[in-house]
Amino acid sequence: MAKIIGNALPNIPWQDKPEGCIDPVWRYSENPIITRNAVPGARSVLNSAAVPYGDGFIGVFRVDSLAMIPGLHVGRSKDGIHWEIEPNQINLVCEDKETANFTYGFDPRVTFIEDRYYVMWCNVIAGVGSTVGLAYTFDFETFYQLPNAYPLYNRNAVLFPKKIDGKFGMLNRPTSGGHCTNGCICYSESPDMIYWGKHRHVMNPTSGWQGTKIGAGPIPIETDEGWLVFYHGVTQMASGMMYSMGGAILDKDQPWKVLYRTKGMIMGPEALYERTGDCSNVVFPCAALTDSETGRIAIYYGAADTVVGLCFCEVNEIVDFIKKNS
Amino acid sequence: MAKIIGNALPNIPWQDKPEGCIDPVWRYSENPIITRNAVPGARSVLNSAAVPYGDGFIGVFRVDSLAMIPGLHVGRSKDGIHWEIEPNQINLVCEDKETANFTYGFDPRVTFIEDRYYVMWCNVIAGVGSTVGLAYTFDFETFYQLPNAYPLYNRNAVLFPKKIDGKFGMLNRPTSGGHCTNGCICYSESPDMIYWGKHRHVMNPTSGWQGTKIGAGPIPIETDEGWLVFYHGVTQMASGMMYSMGGAILDKDQPWKVLYRTKGMIMGPEALYERTGDCSNVVFPCAALTDSETGRIAIYYGAADTVVGLCFCEVNEIVDFIKKNS
Amino acid sequence: MAKIIGNALPNIPWQDKPEGCIDPVWRYSENPIITRNAVPGARSVLNSAAVPYGDGFIGVFRVDSLAMIPGLHVGRSKDGIHWEIEPNQINLVCEDKETANFTYGFDPRVTFIEDRYYVMWCNVIAGVGSTVGLAYTFDFETFYQLPNAYPLYNRNAVLFPKKIDGKFGMLNRPTSGGHCTNGCICYSESPDMIYWGKHRHVMNPTSGWQGTKIGAGPIPIETDEGWLVFYHGVTQMASGMMYSMGGAILDKDQPWKVLYRTKGMIMGPEALYERTGDCSNVVFPCAALTDSETGRIAIYYGAADTVVGLCFCEVNEIVDFIKKNS
Amino acid sequence: MAKIIGNALPNIPWQDKPEGCIDPVWRYSENPIITRNAVPGARSVLNSAAVPYGDGFIGVFRVDSLAMIPGLHVGRSKDGIHWEIEPNQINLVCEDKETANFTYGFDPRVTFIEDRYYVMWCNVIAGVGSTVGLAYTFDFETFYQLPNAYPLYNRNAVLFPKKIDGKFGMLNRPTSGGHCTNGCICYSESPDMIYWGKHRHVMNPTSGWQGTKIGAGPIPIETDEGWLVFYHGVTQMASGMMYSMGGAILDKDQPWKVLYRTKGMIMGPEALYERTGDCSNVVFPCAALTDSETGRIAIYYGAADTVVGLCFCEVNEIVDFIKKNS
Amino acid sequence: MAKIIGNALPNIPWQDKPEGCIDPVWRYSENPIITRNAVPGARSVLNSAAVPYGDGFIGVFRVDSLAMIPGLHVGRSKDGIHWEIEPNQINLVCEDKETANFTYGFDPRVTFIEDRYYVMWCNVIAGVGSTVGLAYTFDFETFYQLPNAYPLYNRNAVLFPKKIDGKFGMLNRPTSGGHCTNGCICYSESPDMIYWGKHRHVMNPTSGWQGTKIGAGPIPIETDEGWLVFYHGVTQMASGMMYSMGGAILDKDQPWKVLYRTKGMIMGPEALYERTGDCSNVVFPCAALTDSETGRIAIYYGAADTVVGLCFCEVNEIVDFIKKNS
Amino acid sequence: MAKIIGNALPNIPWQDKPEGCIDPVWRYSENPIITRNAVPGARSVLNSAAVPYGDGFIGVFRVDSLAMIPGLHVGRSKDGIHWEIEPNQINLVCEDKETANFTYGFDPRVTFIEDRYYVMWCNVIAGVGSTVGLAYTFDFETFYQLPNAYPLYNRNAVLFPKKIDGKFGMLNRPTSGGHCTNGCICYSESPDMIYWGKHRHVMNPTSGWQGTKIGAGPIPIETDEGWLVFYHGVTQMASGMMYSMGGAILDKDQPWKVLYRTKGMIMGPEALYERTGDCSNVVFPCAALTDSETGRIAIYYGAADTVVGLCFCEVNEIVDFIKKNS
Repeated sequence: MAKIIGNALPNIPWQDKPEGCIDPVWRYSENPIITRNAVPGARSVLNSAAVPYGDGFIGVFRVDSLAMIPGLHVGRSKDGIHWEIEPNQINLVCEDKETANFTYGFDPRVTFIEDRYYVMWCNVIAGVGSTVGLAYTFDFETFYQLPNAYPLYNRNAVLFPKKIDGKFGMLNRPTSGGHCTNGCICYSESPDMIYWGKHRHVMNPTSGWQGTKIGAGPIPIETDEGWLVFYHGVTQMASGMMYSMGGAILDKDQPWKVLYRTKGMIMGPEALYERTGDCSNVVFPCAALTDSETGRIAIYYGAADTVVGLCFCEVNEIVDFIKKNS
Repeated sequence: MAKIIGNALPNIPWQDKPEGCIDPVWRYSENPIITRNAVPGARSVLNSAAVPYGDGFIGVFRVDSLAMIPGLHVGRSKDGIHWEIEPNQINLVCEDKETANFTYGFDPRVTFIEDRYYVMWCNVIAGVGSTVGLAYTFDFETFYQLPNAYPLYNRNAVLFPKKIDGKFGMLNRPTSGGHCTNGCICYSESPDMIYWGKHRHVMNPTSGWQGTKIGAGPIPIETDEGWLVFYHGVTQMASGMMYSMGGAILDKDQPWKVLYRTKGMIMGPEALYERTGDCSNVVFPCAALTDSETGRIAIYYGAADTVVGLCFCEVNEIVDFIKKNS
Repeated sequence: MAKIIGNALPNIPWQDKPEGCIDPVWRYSENPIITRNAVPGARSVLNSAAVPYGDGFIGVFRVDSLAMIPGLHVGRSKDGIHWEIEPNQINLVCEDKETANFTYGFDPRVTFIEDRYYVMWCNVIAGVGSTVGLAYTFDFETFYQLPNAYPLYNRNAVLFPKKIDGKFGMLNRPTSGGHCTNGCICYSESPDMIYWGKHRHVMNPTSGWQGTKIGAGPIPIETDEGWLVFYHGVTQMASGMMYSMGGAILDKDQPWKVLYRTKGMIMGPEALYERTGDCSNVVFPCAALTDSETGRIAIYYGAADTVVGLCFCEVNEIVDFIKKNS
Repeated sequence: MAKIIGNALPNIPWQDKPEGCIDPVWRYSENPIITRNAVPGARSVLNSAAVPYGDGFIGVFRVDSLAMIPGLHVGRSKDGIHWEIEPNQINLVCEDKETANFTYGFDPRVTFIEDRYYVMWCNVIAGVGSTVGLAYTFDFETFYQLPNAYPLYNRNAVLFPKKIDGKFGMLNRPTSGGHCTNGCICYSESPDMIYWGKHRHVMNPTSGWQGTKIGAGPIPIETDEGWLVFYHGVTQMASGMMYSMGGAILDKDQPWKVLYRTKGMIMGPEALYERTGDCSNVVFPCAALTDSETGRIAIYYGAADTVVGLCFCEVNEIVDFIKKNS
Repeated sequence: MAKIIGNALPNIPWQDKPEGCIDPVWRYSENPIITRNAVPGARSVLNSAAVPYGDGFIGVFRVDSLAMIPGLHVGRSKDGIHWEIEPNQINLVCEDKETANFTYGFDPRVTFIEDRYYVMWCNVIAGVGSTVGLAYTFDFETFYQLPNAYPLYNRNAVLFPKKIDGKFGMLNRPTSGGHCTNGCICYSESPDMIYWGKHRHVMNPTSGWQGTKIGAGPIPIETDEGWLVFYHGVTQMASGMMYSMGGAILDKDQPWKVLYRTKGMIMGPEALYERTGDCSNVVFPCAALTDSETGRIAIYYGAADTVVGLCFCEVNEIVDFIKKNS
Repeated sequence: MAKIIGNALPNIPWQDKPEGCIDPVWRYSENPIITRNAVPGARSVLNSAAVPYGDGFIGVFRVDSLAMIPGLHVGRSKDGIHWEIEPNQINLVCEDKETANFTYGFDPRVTFIEDRYYVMWCNVIAGVGSTVGLAYTFDFETFYQLPNAYPLYNRNAVLFPKKIDGKFGMLNRPTSGGHCTNGCICYSESPDMIYWGKHRHVMNPTSGWQGTKIGAGPIPIETDEGWLVFYHGVTQMASGMMYSMGGAILDKDQPWKVLYRTKGMIMGPEALYERTGDCSNVVFPCAALTDSETGRIAIYYGAADTVVGLCFCEVNEIVDFIKKNS
């Protein structure tokens, strides 16, 4: 019986699995929970990250303007389902612009470590390329930007929620620019969130649904069996790229070691709001809430690059599924 | 208060803006107004052009056969919404085939200048490439073809509805062949519709929704603030190209000068008939009717390369929107 | 009056043409008939082949796992509409693995010749490429694999249901790897299903809906006018490739000679389950049942690389249509 | 016996054909005649144009700087072989910069018509693309720039040395940007060198040495058999593109009609200075001097994008060769 | 001590290894032995095949015309070094054009089996693609063409000089069209030179000089250690593809089994006539003469797609080298 | 008068500038100084690094085997011109293979900092990609490998010869895999040669000879005007990429700030051994020796990916040239 290691979250958004459903993950019946209507002037609200905060929830949301330029916005919710998103982008406070060069950001993740919240995102430097942007905040009002983690060409960075052997640990995805056609997951560590090193290769794209590229999704979830990781896999179809969700269990102490990894996808595009949108056929998980009491997991994911959906699973069932389908 | 300069059109097709809609352009509730059923043997009826004619409306329609070879057909309507389209392609009368070489045409525009109607289209010369085809008609029964405007590789040509400084003026889109991945809008002029010159660069693709290529849409609309232009912008998504509609105001006397241009799109693919079709995610405006009395504008656009849709706006609101979002 | 040469099939699945329908082929009203729910652990059930068997029907189905790795499965049906598909892939018995190298297969076709059923498929050899896989069975329980028909890079092979001039005859599609962007139909013959030769070129892609590549579909249907062939044609749209169905009549004795071939498609993607799925805009015919008594034809086709659909036509009408639209 | 129609040029640079040579064109034994040493700070002096002037010769030369940015420079010569090239680029006088937009130019051609010298070149507009630049001069000191001939994407324009049916006639090469992989030769006409129209298609790339793209070379040479045209053809080899020289005879009155055209090349890269240089394997003819008395023709060509070479032929032999090898 | 199994050839062209040379293969000092001057109207004479014949030598030569269209020509030599090449292409006698479809051919190989000479080449079918062409001759005057060995997309076919286990055996290179960027060596067999089957995969490209594609060269040479094979390997450099020569030993009885294969090249482009030419950096071996008495081997190879070169090795040294460097 | 800050090197290899030479850099008259003959079994000896050592010189050389797999070898020289290169690759001692993953390396640079020599190279991890490899040595016999500096996709790393503000500083070139078509120079720093951070963008490719990509060359040379840097620039020609050498002056204290940078190249491919070789048209500088007494600089560069050349300049002249041509 796999167990989540962490806090209880009694108010986690939740729906029981529908009868007859044999999949390990199921969608919220009122999906999508967030559409472009959430922010005036938005084209889409998509790949976004939520965490518990006070007696409710808070998060950093990717909002693409009508110009289709992405931006990072703070959002707040009482129940994790209905969200109020600020119309303005977060304001990054930064002492040294040179090492934290930044034009705009997208696909954020958020995690709490020790005393503060860290935000990671794909950080676009106009005319140069994209890399991993980092910041921390105590209150989601002031965000202190840190130096970018790599010189260039990296995205989908996901910090572990606690230090690994005394160091910050981060999954990341070296990449070429644009809609690149290959990409693997690596692991980097840092003593101080400023200097990064001891980079290790973790997982490659393989075949089928994850044959073109892969990238980490929500913050890894600590369980007694290891780190539970949801990630996206991409395959090139005759009609374009398709993004689906898979799962893996990483070693607790050496999280660059993959203990289990689903051969098949856990959830792929199937609902109409996942099939059609600005980018057809996209399920892109970015955040997860967990309740250690009940083992419930709620996953936020971008659908078709256009809206945000919510889906659910239980830790024991999903860990079991990943192990059996590895 | 921006005003349309031109004729009144009391019978312009129209629906008031739905309550709660905050967008400057709204769709006709019975869209799509034309489908492949309009012409026996058609695969699709799409990017097409309508003008007032007598006490009703007339137009040139792009009808793709079941072979998916495009053709230009005349259509007639009493109300601008319900159309009867001729089953046969228009017959081009042409004295000099060599300078008006033509295999088939698509994406027509139509405008009335002085004493006749001009038709422009993307003119495909089999085995050679595509350029701008031109013809005029007095009655939509006989079309007199003019020499092609450029040697090769140009499309989306749109004549101004009156001479500019004594010359015909035409927006156009130099291009490479096929589904080219960049393209800008230029302006050319002609003393006689035969010889073209004094070409000027007008607008480039920029970023986001219009980062890959752009092309003019309906005939420019004369207003007291300048020429109101709707155009399409294209962005390359991981699942293919997406076409949306933007707007611009060009200088009245020097229409190659851009006074304002929307950073964000005015209307992008959102309805299911825009999201899915032979080419997913396409909103492609080709014609506009205007009523100078009320300021009403009705825009005809191709949706998903499969059907024709209709949408509406008011001149004052849209000009205001373009200026504020420039 | 074209007539099918072959057996009667009184229990052929059938629905009359809906009133008002002017197309020569019409869809089954309860489409799709097979979805991923047919097989636990399946992502999709798609391009598949059915034949009459006993007092019902049997077939070989392409089932893509959640890993999106294709597999070939046997399925059985009483009425040709409701199918039970085995959860396990067919087990190929093979004496000489070297010449029948095989990692996985997809897009099967099945035909009965003389005393047994032959199965053909696209045969992927991991790390090498894909070619034509072949096997025969008497009972759909044991499948005896034959040597691959070509060294490499061939797919969409379709055996004729009887020998041509004393030799096995097979349509096939030489190809490059992956989502290749051109491909034609060839004809090969064999005295023994082991050695293949006398290869002939049959049809090229042309333009429009079949301008990018083409490939044979169901087993050719013998008629008194020649071999009736349904095939798929592909065109490259700005949003990806689109697959539609066309038809041709091949010479009875020299089936590499094309007597007639539709300029337009017979049926293209139009239903939502054909428009959206893992690969948007796909109609991919793989099998046909025929009743020589009534001239009825039922065609099985993959839709959007995700489900199986059924459509119908009558031999006289479709032959007539192909001849008139050639 | 083909004859050149035009002036005598007794001082035409010349060498008799070497004994044993069976090719219709032969190289000057002291090639290359111009190298980068001709201009301090030059990387290369290449595709350039010369005309008779006074009792010597004058021309416009392409000089690429050490930054490899091309420029147009005037050069002067007594004998057509030894040249003095001005260190500064020509200064274009231009009344209307908007219609004569210009960042830099390359691959010039020069011709005298009626009372002045016209210069044509590939005109690069930074951030926009390239088109045909035009200017005229009386004295090679002041150059009056005319509006660009096309909106965008055209190069290798070559004016005929006299009006055709009362209009200026110009060969040109519609193109996509960069090292495009296809391109044909068209013909455009103009009443005034400002407005261009009646565009006709002249020649396509075919196969072999001219299978990828083609473009006109020197100013057409008037003969009693029609216009003698030298052009370059390009083929894509496994090691990059190769540029060779071919010949054609165009109809005297309707020069868009090809009477003869060499199937084989007339001269391809063979000398070491043609085989190696900044662009390997390039023979790129840009200018020709002719002597109507003797039928001698001297052709200037760029070699390997690095130097200028000179080669010779006789009008009767070359016309004969083109006709026999057409 | 490896030995050649076969005839003595006392008049084999030969030069001893130059002193100081440590490479296992060395060039003929008078290279290139054949240039375009050998055939009037030729652009190049390149990848060609020679065999002993009577008291001299004979062969089939690839001669590219000035149009750069390849052709196959017979050539004769007394000493194997000085060749006379017929100006006309060989004339193929063919009973069934349909299965021996042929537009032009290139890169021939020749071998004697039992009672006749077989010729293999890359057989281009215009508008369709390329495959393996086959013919036999008794006298090099009449060539009887056989059906093409594969439907499409194959080249570099090389027959073994005797039957393997009672069947004709042939190395071949499945390919996509044009300058494809991958390609491996396969083995096919035939009972009758008409039907081909039991295809096996032999060797893949690996890395370095042979990382992009590989293809067989001369007819395999029988030795007591197995079949000695010279082949070309291709690597994609920043300046284009480079072709070098490697060697392998195949199993005597199962020649699809690779016993040894050089990790490094045996001879790569180094001489100026290999470095520069119509295709820079090409060493392309097509034929070998052997003398079983002395163990001498003379290899004919195309250089830079422009000329023919000759190089030498000794069987014992080369087999040893291949084994040690495998 | 710019001055080198550093040691005197009286035995620096040197030749005075040839008379008449107006370029700021000139070639050694006996170039190339190292060819493949230097190492038995080598295909080429190319992009390599030399430093003073004892009373002579030592270095790390890139030696590509006949398999064209690169390797790093130690070489020794008395005069800096004649080199003895060890036949075996350097042996890397490495405690933690996981963070110093390594298959092979190429394009080394070497610098002495404080008490040891550091080596940097492009570090290929088979099946994964390439990154920056690092090691140090005291004696060029034992090399201690450090963790790779970045997760993936970086090359052309060049350490500064002393700490900058207490940290190691390193120029580097983020890249995509293979022959990537863009790449800029960044700066990273490290407190300990294990963790890297504070990455800054330094220079982008611009246009002309350096329009495609750029990368640092030798170790930066300290002068009283700032850091003198030689770098390579790449441009895409129709026949492939061309590599030339440029120069820049970086700020002494903040070397990520570019004070001057040549618009034109300083030295491009011109000698035959630079024009032809395994990769045509390559001048690739990797190391420089300097004599602070005389201001002499000797630059080692790879030529045509095949051999090593030597060229010279004087510090005052070159700094002056860079400043004047910036």
